[in-house]
Amino acid sequence: MAAATTYAVLVELLKARQLKELREKFEELNVVDIADFIERLAGEDIVIAFRALHKDTAAEVFSYLSYDMQEQIVKSITDQEIANIINELFVDDAADFLEEMPAGVVKRVLKNASPDTRALINQFLQYPPDSAGSIMTAEFVGLKKTMTVRDAFARIRRDAVDRETIYTCYVMDENRHLEGIITVRELFVAPEDTLIGDIMDTKIISATTTDDQEHVARLFAKYDLLSLPVVDQENRLVGIVTVDDVVQVITQEATEDFQLMAATSPTERPYLRTSVWELARHRIIWLAVLMLSATVTGVVLQRYEEAFLAIPLLVSFIPMLTDTGGNAGSQSATLIIRGMAVDEIRPNDFFKVLWKEFRISLVVGASLGALNFVRIYLIHPGEPILSLTVSVSLMAVVVVAKTVGGILPMLAKVLKADPAIMASPVITTIVDAVGLLVYFKIVEAILL
Amino acid sequence: MAAATTYAVLVELLKARQLKELREKFEELNVVDIADFIERLAGEDIVIAFRALHKDTAAEVFSYLSYDMQEQIVKSITDQEIANIINELFVDDAADFLEEMPAGVVKRVLKNASPDTRALINQFLQYPPDSAGSIMTAEFVGLKKTMTVRDAFARIRRDAVDRETIYTCYVMDENRHLEGIITVRELFVAPEDTLIGDIMDTKIISATTTDDQEHVARLFAKYDLLSLPVVDQENRLVGIVTVDDVVQVITQEATEDFQLMAATSPTERPYLRTSVWELARHRIIWLAVLMLSATVTGVVLQRYEEAFLAIPLLVSFIPMLTDTGGNAGSQSATLIIRGMAVDEIRPNDFFKVLWKEFRISLVVGASLGALNFVRIYLIHPGEPILSLTVSVSLMAVVVVAKTVGGILPMLAKVLKADPAIMASPVITTIVDAVGLLVYFKIVEAILL
Repeated sequence: MAAATTYAVLVELLKARQLKELREKFEELNVVDIADFIERLAGEDIVIAFRALHKDTAAEVFSYLSYDMQEQIVKSITDQEIANIINELFVDDAADFLEEMPAGVVKRVLKNASPDTRALINQFLQYPPDSAGSIMTAEFVGLKKTMTVRDAFARIRRDAVDRETIYTCYVMDENRHLEGIITVRELFVAPEDTLIGDIMDTKIISATTTDDQEHVARLFAKYDLLSLPVVDQENRLVGIVTVDDVVQVITQEATEDFQLMAATSPTERPYLRTSVWELARHRIIWLAVLMLSATVTGVVLQRYEEAFLAIPLLVSFIPMLTDTGGNAGSQSATLIIRGMAVDEIRPNDFFKVLWKEFRISLVVGASLGALNFVRIYLIHPGEPILSLTVSVSLMAVVVVAKTVGGILPMLAKVLKADPAIMASPVITTIVDAVGLLVYFKIVEAILL
Repeated sequence: MAAATTYAVLVELLKARQLKELREKFEELNVVDIADFIERLAGEDIVIAFRALHKDTAAEVFSYLSYDMQEQIVKSITDQEIANIINELFVDDAADFLEEMPAGVVKRVLKNASPDTRALINQFLQYPPDSAGSIMTAEFVGLKKTMTVRDAFARIRRDAVDRETIYTCYVMDENRHLEGIITVRELFVAPEDTLIGDIMDTKIISATTTDDQEHVARLFAKYDLLSLPVVDQENRLVGIVTVDDVVQVITQEATEDFQLMAATSPTERPYLRTSVWELARHRIIWLAVLMLSATVTGVVLQRYEEAFLAIPLLVSFIPMLTDTGGNAGSQSATLIIRGMAVDEIRPNDFFKVLWKEFRISLVVGASLGALNFVRIYLIHPGEPILSLTVSVSLMAVVVVAKTVGGILPMLAKVLKADPAIMASPVITTIVDAVGLLVYFKIVEAILL
């Protein structure tokens, strides 16, 4: 929303039910801002505001609304209005929306869709979630090799209104096999009589319907694409993915990684719109698993009870050791997880990563160990051997932590698990148990 | 690279110095793949391969190379070759490249640029890093209100070759003030004699040169844009940001947040290409700060020495308590940080977040407390009071952790700091000290 004043004006017109003026005001706004406005309404205002929209704008605004709002609106409008929306929506948006609706709503919406639209939507609903098929659109401009540039322009002009992108066109043979790609830019610089087959680009970068959307996003980032053709198992062109959907995918995949790395089950629903119960449910499982795993650390500490009863000061260094170990391990794990997510690090870099993390851990461990020696020596000047013991332990813990932190995400990847689960919480739990064992082994060797 | 065989063929041609065949092979490849190939070369092969490129392709391949490679190439080619590259590069790519080069290289490159290019590059180099100005391009199609659709097509045809995008055109007055926007799609559906001023879109979404690139990325994500006009302080159009650059920005900003959240100083250089010393340097500072902060936890533990000397078993629960607290706090911090990064949570949601996290922490704390009671009771059946004490402490720690974890990132934002620094490591350090204090206070109250 550009300004709070616009919002106030819209609310006023809506409350006064001045729907003609409201519609005029809507026409001056971007559809995303109109959707933002409707999101902030409640009760019957929602449907009244939605109905004030121009027919052409309604479907577009609808595609930007949250699933909650979409459901509320669909439940309150007529079959005819539903038909208008569903036939106007791009098929991928329609499928996204239907995937989130209860069965009754899906049935009613599909009943009102035109037979063509219904068939297409049903096809889209069959693609696996988060696949190229699930984010592609079927509305693209198709050309033939034998067309001239002039023919191509005529076709584009005809199709311009209802295709998601017209700037990249796809050249297919009679069996819909993809033969080449041509951009409107290339058409502009070519003489009008040139055959498409002579100027089309045959270095085609494409995806298949079952490819993961993360893979698709990487292709866009790597090759600076505006759109990407998607083919089926028989190599027939079935749709295209456009860059605006990829922008959402990149953001969504990063959010999913952030959530996983913080030991939270991923959800796409915005925080402020999720209930306390649901948020709690997403967090408890991992916390419980990690808490139960900490039993191991408890066992280690019980085993060395005599050591810390003899030198109680040893206990006061435990949190410093485990925290530094945990932090050192998460640094490595996070960098490796992110590196794999953006495809800079691959499973066959395993030994390179192991060797690099090992050397880094020596540098970091030695530096922190030295700093720590000075710190403890300043606080407990009479205990140089104690300072030494704790500092050697710290160095050992950092080396273990960084090595474990570096390789576990790569192992997860090799085992086809999401590397992001091998982040801070899991690394911390493992490093704590190993670290304390190392600590008391070194204490035994030096102090006792 | 499509296949390892392509790579092998290219290497063979290069080693045999069959440069004509190499050039032909290059023409069949995507420029990004050619850049990938050159990245894997060493020594004089790099420049020889680069020189085998067609003149038209060279600048484009150059823009996809790493800074190390760009420097090596520029140092080995002639002034004439440099002039060809720098005049062909888009200004934003040229500025990016020069920002990373040593002074001597910058001087030599600018000397060989045409006066126009040099002036434009110098202007770009003055925009703050990570600003809209620093990622925009000056190559766009400008139109006038008084032009017809036919005129506009003629202009686009003329400009098509060397403009970064032609699909959105910008309508300016004689003082270069932005008056409207029109897409090629809209031009296609309009009659040829229509005036641009009559059909252009005046609902303009724009940025200023000094806006943060993160803000720009959010506008693209929100409004599904392909390009965005950038104006200067006097509202004159100076450039446009295109969606391919935004895809890089989104990825880069997420990477920066991942690094900060793992207590690592951010760097844009890929992990495998960064030296051990540099990686170590980026990690030591935060680890040292956090390690020294853990002195507080040590003091707390020393203060309660008598408590754990009386009941040594108390020590064995310390890692479980601090880890669960740390994990619970990071979950909240991570969700809030990410929510703010994608603009779903804003500073004025402070009390909503506080209240929500408090309620979540009660649910999560009570659940974990109950589970923990059962666990300890099973291991130590004779100690129900001990089980109760630890479980009540656990619940209190979770409540503190989630509340602190939820509000600290928001406070950071209000204080204009990056919320991402208030992530797992900092939260863990704070929660450890507070958590142990709470633990021993409860121990004192119930057990002693």
